[in-house]
Amino acid sequence: MIYCSNCGERVTEKIPAGDDRPRHVCGTCHMVHYQNPKIVAGCVPVWDNRVLLCRRAIEPRHGLWTLPAGFMENGESTEQAAARETWEEACARVTDLALYGVFSMPQINQVYMMFRAHMETGDFQPGRESLDVKLYEEHEIPWDELAFPVVRLTLERFYKDSGNGHFPVYVENIARHPARKG
Amino acid sequence: MIYCSNCGERVTEKIPAGDDRPRHVCGTCHMVHYQNPKIVAGCVPVWDNRVLLCRRAIEPRHGLWTLPAGFMENGESTEQAAARETWEEACARVTDLALYGVFSMPQINQVYMMFRAHMETGDFQPGRESLDVKLYEEHEIPWDELAFPVVRLTLERFYKDSGNGHFPVYVENIARHPARKG
Repeated sequence: MIYCSNCGERVTEKIPAGDDRPRHVCGTCHMVHYQNPKIVAGCVPVWDNRVLLCRRAIEPRHGLWTLPAGFMENGESTEQAAARETWEEACARVTDLALYGVFSMPQINQVYMMFRAHMETGDFQPGRESLDVKLYEEHEIPWDELAFPVVRLTLERFYKDSGNGHFPVYVENIARHPARKG
Repeated sequence: MIYCSNCGERVTEKIPAGDDRPRHVCGTCHMVHYQNPKIVAGCVPVWDNRVLLCRRAIEPRHGLWTLPAGFMENGESTEQAAARETWEEACARVTDLALYGVFSMPQINQVYMMFRAHMETGDFQPGRESLDVKLYEEHEIPWDELAFPVVRLTLERFYKDSGNGHFPVYVENIARHPARKG
């Protein structure tokens, strides 16, 4: 952030009165521009005991496999965001979403909210952000071609918990990158 | 948002190529400025079977009682955010945070993440955003002077669940305002 989105003048980084950390503050109109973590909502879509994965058509991790997930939009709930992303990336309708993981990634200012979900039908096809979409049985999961650590973690938990049919809600931190960005 | 935070020129609202909803887009440097929901993290701090509430010294709802909660900051986890807010508003240290509620408020673009938590000691005092801080037994809770519906909902769930000692994780939507804002 270089310019004030309210008045167009330059912002500076300083600690506002009564605050305890640097913010982007406009010297002209005095607006404080806060920056906060974003929610990435996604799910584990299940059909006939298989899990739906998407092969990414976009960077980062082009060509690798992921669970459908993406940035939550204004005006929707977390479940709606997860279902919308599944529709956009895999053209699959999901229902009965159950919260499964809240994974904070403080180094990149994101919080993943992953749900378990049932596919309403066996229909799916690649959305515009996917090269391919496929239902995988557990022994077929491409563990060495997964796009993100959070995808691996979620799938590992899912198959472990599927063994006893008990699915808690995981609240964990994931060190997404070795070094802090920004 | 009126001006581009990257180049200082005016932005317009339009649907970018490949997107499906209006964004603030800069006609000069072409940056797309996304706006996403914010996380409000808070907790139910418990000490000696009593719950710590804060009387708000700030708007909105000045003078009413709330559970400690506030906007999650970049660089922290959801639990860290809830514990930091408890420290800032009530000067109380909490530990053993357990996720209790994820409450989406699509009308105001917020997601509350409420935790149950133990106070490390019985020490507390008003932080700069609180007029007063007090430990309440269940029968003392000022139900008619609570600041927000999410506070009431969380406390109602908490006392109901305390009866049988089973605390699930609630994932719900709360209609915070009757009409959509913005």
